[in-house]
Amino acid sequence: MKKVGLIMGSDSDLPVVEKAVDKLKSLDVPYEAHIYSAHRTPLQAKEFAEGAEEAGFGVLIAFAGKAAHLAGALAASTTLPVIGVPVKSSTLDGLDALLSTVQMPSGIPVATVAIDGAANAAILAAQIIATGEPELAKRLKEDRQAASKKVLDKDSKLKL
Amino acid sequence: MKKVGLIMGSDSDLPVVEKAVDKLKSLDVPYEAHIYSAHRTPLQAKEFAEGAEEAGFGVLIAFAGKAAHLAGALAASTTLPVIGVPVKSSTLDGLDALLSTVQMPSGIPVATVAIDGAANAAILAAQIIATGEPELAKRLKEDRQAASKKVLDKDSKLKL
Amino acid sequence: MKKVGLIMGSDSDLPVVEKAVDKLKSLDVPYEAHIYSAHRTPLQAKEFAEGAEEAGFGVLIAFAGKAAHLAGALAASTTLPVIGVPVKSSTLDGLDALLSTVQMPSGIPVATVAIDGAANAAILAAQIIATGEPELAKRLKEDRQAASKKVLDKDSKLKL
Amino acid sequence: MKKVGLIMGSDSDLPVVEKAVDKLKSLDVPYEAHIYSAHRTPLQAKEFAEGAEEAGFGVLIAFAGKAAHLAGALAASTTLPVIGVPVKSSTLDGLDALLSTVQMPSGIPVATVAIDGAANAAILAAQIIATGEPELAKRLKEDRQAASKKVLDKDSKLKL
Amino acid sequence: MKKVGLIMGSDSDLPVVEKAVDKLKSLDVPYEAHIYSAHRTPLQAKEFAEGAEEAGFGVLIAFAGKAAHLAGALAASTTLPVIGVPVKSSTLDGLDALLSTVQMPSGIPVATVAIDGAANAAILAAQIIATGEPELAKRLKEDRQAASKKVLDKDSKLKL
Amino acid sequence: MKKVGLIMGSDSDLPVVEKAVDKLKSLDVPYEAHIYSAHRTPLQAKEFAEGAEEAGFGVLIAFAGKAAHLAGALAASTTLPVIGVPVKSSTLDGLDALLSTVQMPSGIPVATVAIDGAANAAILAAQIIATGEPELAKRLKEDRQAASKKVLDKDSKLKL
Amino acid sequence: MKKVGLIMGSDSDLPVVEKAVDKLKSLDVPYEAHIYSAHRTPLQAKEFAEGAEEAGFGVLIAFAGKAAHLAGALAASTTLPVIGVPVKSSTLDGLDALLSTVQMPSGIPVATVAIDGAANAAILAAQIIATGEPELAKRLKEDRQAASKKVLDKDSKLKL
Amino acid sequence: MKKVGLIMGSDSDLPVVEKAVDKLKSLDVPYEAHIYSAHRTPLQAKEFAEGAEEAGFGVLIAFAGKAAHLAGALAASTTLPVIGVPVKSSTLDGLDALLSTVQMPSGIPVATVAIDGAANAAILAAQIIATGEPELAKRLKEDRQAASKKVLDKDSKLKL
Repeated sequence: MKKVGLIMGSDSDLPVVEKAVDKLKSLDVPYEAHIYSAHRTPLQAKEFAEGAEEAGFGVLIAFAGKAAHLAGALAASTTLPVIGVPVKSSTLDGLDALLSTVQMPSGIPVATVAIDGAANAAILAAQIIATGEPELAKRLKEDRQAASKKVLDKDSKLKL
Repeated sequence: MKKVGLIMGSDSDLPVVEKAVDKLKSLDVPYEAHIYSAHRTPLQAKEFAEGAEEAGFGVLIAFAGKAAHLAGALAASTTLPVIGVPVKSSTLDGLDALLSTVQMPSGIPVATVAIDGAANAAILAAQIIATGEPELAKRLKEDRQAASKKVLDKDSKLKL
Repeated sequence: MKKVGLIMGSDSDLPVVEKAVDKLKSLDVPYEAHIYSAHRTPLQAKEFAEGAEEAGFGVLIAFAGKAAHLAGALAASTTLPVIGVPVKSSTLDGLDALLSTVQMPSGIPVATVAIDGAANAAILAAQIIATGEPELAKRLKEDRQAASKKVLDKDSKLKL
Repeated sequence: MKKVGLIMGSDSDLPVVEKAVDKLKSLDVPYEAHIYSAHRTPLQAKEFAEGAEEAGFGVLIAFAGKAAHLAGALAASTTLPVIGVPVKSSTLDGLDALLSTVQMPSGIPVATVAIDGAANAAILAAQIIATGEPELAKRLKEDRQAASKKVLDKDSKLKL
Repeated sequence: MKKVGLIMGSDSDLPVVEKAVDKLKSLDVPYEAHIYSAHRTPLQAKEFAEGAEEAGFGVLIAFAGKAAHLAGALAASTTLPVIGVPVKSSTLDGLDALLSTVQMPSGIPVATVAIDGAANAAILAAQIIATGEPELAKRLKEDRQAASKKVLDKDSKLKL
Repeated sequence: MKKVGLIMGSDSDLPVVEKAVDKLKSLDVPYEAHIYSAHRTPLQAKEFAEGAEEAGFGVLIAFAGKAAHLAGALAASTTLPVIGVPVKSSTLDGLDALLSTVQMPSGIPVATVAIDGAANAAILAAQIIATGEPELAKRLKEDRQAASKKVLDKDSKLKL
Repeated sequence: MKKVGLIMGSDSDLPVVEKAVDKLKSLDVPYEAHIYSAHRTPLQAKEFAEGAEEAGFGVLIAFAGKAAHLAGALAASTTLPVIGVPVKSSTLDGLDALLSTVQMPSGIPVATVAIDGAANAAILAAQIIATGEPELAKRLKEDRQAASKKVLDKDSKLKL
Repeated sequence: MKKVGLIMGSDSDLPVVEKAVDKLKSLDVPYEAHIYSAHRTPLQAKEFAEGAEEAGFGVLIAFAGKAAHLAGALAASTTLPVIGVPVKSSTLDGLDALLSTVQMPSGIPVATVAIDGAANAAILAAQIIATGEPELAKRLKEDRQAASKKVLDKDSKLKL
């Protein structure tokens, strides 16, 4: 199965990244995580993206805050699908990261999820990889049903 | 090759949808387009999404404005990747559609692109389908190189 | 008297929902509360809305945060009045939920109240049901007068 | 049948109000329209709201732009349901009117619809009045089905 | 000397109002404070504003949060200058109160100061009253010089 | 009677300034207009403000767009009341000018009116000057009544 | 004298870039302009920035819209000062470009000017180069005085 | 070597200013810090800026919150490059300070960095001064490499 690449711009993004890791583990999807900054280590970010397909990655997820360029920088150096997770930082509540990630110019898309939406990024990555992996597709459906059941269980126990 | 499903919430979205169609045609990716509203025809939207995998779709793209629920509604009824294109309408410059599309709760991701970013949605859809289609992957790389060459040509002719 | 249906997208919305419950109780308006997610349990949300009129509901109140589709999803499956309460979550201060709830496309209205405005949603629901319930209309007027008196009492004791 | 009161803060709001009138006419709901400003004619606005129930109104719709206080001012003087339509003016794209209308303090709800959402305000008013009017309830359902059919017709003719 | 009227929409605004009181006291400007809500006690708010000139007030200051209508409501019932202080509440960081206070329609101005800017509201009120009070004008100038001196003292002691 | 000083940061603000001039003329309030930029002619702006009281001005109105510092710069050099009119420019719809004008730090208030709210600035200036001018106070009340009558006339002719 | 490098992300930015060129010409500052996209030609953008100091550039100006990464991408590959001009595009009024340009993470600054603020970017570039060029410093002062005189001339001719 | 002038509008900005001081010290760039308010001590701010070039400053950094006029006020009185650091205060998350600082009118640029971006302001100041200081330019490059190495070290130790 192809791997998911998790690239964060700074180790301060780790608490968000870990939610994606947990979800990928629970779905049994292989992954590899790195810290590469679009601004402090642009060369490594670029080389990682350029070699990602060859190295067995099927999709990349970038985590970055503020003027979040990482997802776009990776997307500029690969034609693999790139998912962007805007990370909330100390001001503007993540709106800067959201707009910097989602408003990409024509030609280089970034598949953006919610601010701090790491678990959804992992699910989206799994959905993309599942295109060629029927077993994973099945796990995603079971996961969905379990989430649905959990809501209905809570509803049945609701006392108000 | 798997098809791309293009679902718009209203025929007023057609000018935006057409940019996605143009890009898919140029990349030789099969597609099928429908008008289903999350609010006016919720049943048809749901049934389309539920049957999409079976019907040969590999990815769906939803186009909607204002309180843009269409992408989320489709994503709730399939585990195929769903791409959301927030469409600008007469007020708020598309910010309402962007937030309604991208800020999905945990469990149901929508891969959101820029406001009115239809061409990028098509490229992202092609990137997802290309996971299992080496020829399409090649076309995407050629497309990228052509776009790069076009910029450099303009640069070489720039007179200022 | 017709019942008020209180539907929340997640049990994390409970602290907000409880304020609506308190107000309905104080106005002696019957209600029934459920947890149904527009995205995780779309079928149950839809079926609840479709059967709501038959089941004796006169108005529904939906509570949801982020890309808050629940009110719109219920409204799409009933012609009963649907009130939407945008719930503040961890980012963007509820603006995403507000725009996702209020900016509904033509044809399917949602009666939106303030972010986290649960008590007002309950009063609005009571005002709607009171159209055919003179006793309830009277209680609403008394409640209003009591609120007014409370302000004037505070004013008369104000020392600054 | 109870009447719908349409109150606009200024005659510059007329193009928006007319869309509500058209929808009420098509649903055969009686209405009465007035120009009363919360700021330039506060007394008349207040007296209209205070006498509205007695005068046979079942619900009021207020149309106002900028620091849109009209809906709130009416709601402060009646316990009838009051619907607010934020009207877009020359700056800020209606965001000022939206927040001034929807963010009402506890005790005095305003049922807010989308910016310039006059048709939806009319439908919502009809849904409220329909609580005691089975014929109107039926018309609302037929109207909904017609809207749905219209979308499906467009879908069946879609060529892309 | 004419009095300053301080009107707050709710006693939850007291911590903000107190900063205005402190400043008025330090400038030796007479004042009178009240709790009147534009929505819960519209009549009292209106009557207070109508009688304010007669009662010896020279300027009014209104404090309110969320859909902050109080300053506008007072301004609609007097031609005395009315100052509005938008008060920050639990969501949207005071932006709703700011827009509801400052974006007044033509004909009824509200002199708006910063969100939670109570001390500045008091100074502005004093500046207005000082038009006819040379002694107060002198105190305002001394106050300004003292503030300036305080900054320069801090500068002279700055060690970095 | 004291004069109103109208200071604009650029002659591109003239169309907005003229609405204030019209209103002051109709109220028979003396005024004097200048173009002084807080940034391009800071010295002249400062000297004008410092000498304004001596020169017979009772209140100043500043008109500026973008990072609108003019009102604050004048306010820093006089203890006369200073009114700020945020002027909409080519981007951000006047929000930059509004926040730059209204969010003044403690000690130096600016009485801010709506974006492009020139007529209201003139009325507010007249209200301030009217503190010591009973005839002007009377004209303001008549003006208010005329505005009210105009609304009621329109209401009586409304056909919908 | 060191040159100013003008890099635009797309030839659609040319109308904005030309205002910077005009200002640089009028100040007699040498410049060189290029079209390099951070996303479509990341390699060329990087190589240009890496070689800029060697090639005689003293400062770079980047022009880009939407998720405007160009200034940050250049700044990541040089320690020359980099100025960013956020360019307004078809949605969000340039707010996306502003936040994407200015909110840079620690370590890699971008000197951001106003949305579409090309002339100011040119002046800022000239101010930076003027550090070692007394003649240019003199021209900047003369330019400033001329701008000041122009305002005062307009003021002296103002008729209102 | 030319000095960097650090001017803060209030001593409440000290925690932000200290981050700039730390960075300048680590780069061995001489600096001098002052507290001058654009509004409370406009004269001192102006005189400082006017004499800055003569006094051996090469660049100024202004720190201010809310309606942050300080950077613009300094820039209006010198042709040295002026860097603006918008400081987050108790409301609006620094957006007011950002827009007040960056949206300068044509003629008077302010080189704006991120909200609370003091370290970047110091680096930018050093980059400007380094134009004529090869040793400083070298330190900036080493600093950049150290930051890059730090990221790569963290990456090599990452366990997820």
